[in-house]
Amino acid sequence: MKLHTRVAAIRPEQRKVELSDGEALPFDHLVLATGAGCRRPDVPGEHLEGIFCLRNVADALRIKRFIDERRVRRAVVVGAGLVSLEMCEAFRSLDLETTLVYRGALPQHRLGEEFAQQVLQELEGNGVTFMGGTKLEGFEQAAKAGLVVHTSNGSLETDLVLLGIGVVPEVRLAAEAGLALGSTGAIAVNDRMQTSVPFIYAAGDCCESHHRVSHRPVYAPLGDIANKQGRIAGANIGGQHLSFPGIVGSICFKVFGLEVASTGLTENEAREAGLEPVSAAIKGVSKAHVYPGAAELRLRLVAEAESGRLLGAQGVGGGGVVSRINALAAALTGGLALEDLAYLDLAYAPPFSGAWDPVHIAAQQLLK
Amino acid sequence: MKLHTRVAAIRPEQRKVELSDGEALPFDHLVLATGAGCRRPDVPGEHLEGIFCLRNVADALRIKRFIDERRVRRAVVVGAGLVSLEMCEAFRSLDLETTLVYRGALPQHRLGEEFAQQVLQELEGNGVTFMGGTKLEGFEQAAKAGLVVHTSNGSLETDLVLLGIGVVPEVRLAAEAGLALGSTGAIAVNDRMQTSVPFIYAAGDCCESHHRVSHRPVYAPLGDIANKQGRIAGANIGGQHLSFPGIVGSICFKVFGLEVASTGLTENEAREAGLEPVSAAIKGVSKAHVYPGAAELRLRLVAEAESGRLLGAQGVGGGGVVSRINALAAALTGGLALEDLAYLDLAYAPPFSGAWDPVHIAAQQLLK
Repeated sequence: MKLHTRVAAIRPEQRKVELSDGEALPFDHLVLATGAGCRRPDVPGEHLEGIFCLRNVADALRIKRFIDERRVRRAVVVGAGLVSLEMCEAFRSLDLETTLVYRGALPQHRLGEEFAQQVLQELEGNGVTFMGGTKLEGFEQAAKAGLVVHTSNGSLETDLVLLGIGVVPEVRLAAEAGLALGSTGAIAVNDRMQTSVPFIYAAGDCCESHHRVSHRPVYAPLGDIANKQGRIAGANIGGQHLSFPGIVGSICFKVFGLEVASTGLTENEAREAGLEPVSAAIKGVSKAHVYPGAAELRLRLVAEAESGRLLGAQGVGGGGVVSRINALAAALTGGLALEDLAYLDLAYAPPFSGAWDPVHIAAQQLLK
Repeated sequence: MKLHTRVAAIRPEQRKVELSDGEALPFDHLVLATGAGCRRPDVPGEHLEGIFCLRNVADALRIKRFIDERRVRRAVVVGAGLVSLEMCEAFRSLDLETTLVYRGALPQHRLGEEFAQQVLQELEGNGVTFMGGTKLEGFEQAAKAGLVVHTSNGSLETDLVLLGIGVVPEVRLAAEAGLALGSTGAIAVNDRMQTSVPFIYAAGDCCESHHRVSHRPVYAPLGDIANKQGRIAGANIGGQHLSFPGIVGSICFKVFGLEVASTGLTENEAREAGLEPVSAAIKGVSKAHVYPGAAELRLRLVAEAESGRLLGAQGVGGGGVVSRINALAAALTGGLALEDLAYLDLAYAPPFSGAWDPVHIAAQQLLK
């Protein structure tokens, strides 16, 4: 193990990596697991003290220490992705005044306006101030203590900023070594996780994934996918012949009391992928409606107009959303159509669903 | 609407039903939704006061009233099916001394000894006395008040008995009219829910279902299936051409703090259906193991030895079991194999699962 040493360059033709201390390490197989870095906003003052990204446990501990030591009372979160929304919840749980600054009109707008409105209500209902349609313009040290955040909708003072505007794959070494990058900008890999140089593998947030529904390469920097890719790369290097079947694009998160999840394509994404989609959204209940703790949920199904083949699903609600999305992720993987879903044999008991599950109701709605 | 009138007979050749009041009603299409009745134990004293079946709301209200009016303190439940276990929970929630009398060694033995032991622990941990391997022999009025229950393991006194030894399809009218019954004893139907007389339909607990995994007719008297069958029958009578695709055998219930669910076939059932199954069980966690409220769960997958095709799954645990079983029900419907499940793209976030879900871990275990 070599700590505190960077890889300076990869030399595929010599099967060596050059380290920053001058040493060269020979290899038979090389795995690039360089991950991703925080996307930077490229605005004045972005490196001031009190402005954080969150990529790992060290970042989280730094943020916690800063909150404790500086007696932080106010936080601004920039961006409205998974990490940003989860951090809004974390900050509110510490009783910080929390403001979300986002260039889009609604958080999670990808899910459609109706569902995004519900995410917004959940944020506002839990004391987060949402500044939508707002462009970040820069940061300054405040006169006494803290920071000033300049935006297209005016300036606000805060004690801490979390930048959650996404991540970029760390591909410098790969690119300099001449490995092919894909259309997403991440490292291109085949289904055995080999890069364009077959004895060099890549796995995790530095590389692309194959999307089984759009049949396109996508950049999906998520922990579960990284785990799978790493296992496939290792198995192939170890002599097995294992293929990563790709992803269907399943995502979920919890924000305050709301479950949000999706799989496959949205209607817009399906259209962009050259498909002809239809969709329908329904309101349903997570358990039998008479059962204690039954929560309202909304579910949208997207299907191919001609064939009825499922293309995707999005859900949001007080409970039971991830459970439905995971059944639909399996359905997508199996190529099921709306007719299959309308009568899908899901396990039924009142603590877990009504006799007609939201999945059935949504499929029947879209079949009309 | 004719209340308080029974159907005395069905005359298919005349397209008429004869009522108990002598009237005859003509029909174009007839739907038999005669349901099922409580299976009776056929022992002495089984009709004594205080001995109940539970088939509908009227039964439930009768039981509640009896408990209130007679100040019931002790209950005996006979049988260990879904209704019996749910009623154990209901009785314990009223603080009744509750004894479960069952001829089998363990409740829910179908799920395998390991899982059944966990169901037993949950019952006993919540104050239910379990008398396994115990044959019911009869009932008697107790000397003062209450009932004596005679069993192969001695006699016990109680105030109330719930008979939960299963149900039998109500097929008398159908059989007398010459409609074909299936091998299960329930009314035989095709995928449009037509009986052997095409203009007579049947739906719900009186008829069979097609099992998509065993490819055999099965008797599955469950509320969600009845709903689906009724809708299919109605649509076909209304002029649509809709097929009921059959079931994969998904079942779930909650008993105290335990979720129990299964889909498809157990290893034994697969063997009985002429298949060559393998299976593996794992212990997993419902959420990321560091997340508050993460519960232990056990999951068993059953697959075809040769092809790896999923044949069934059984689960038991403190949470998240039904959610996994429903994803696996969709996987069964889509014909997925263990290799698909080992890398299935389920939505991942710590409040809902680890990066490796129990579904992945079980599939990888069985692939070894």
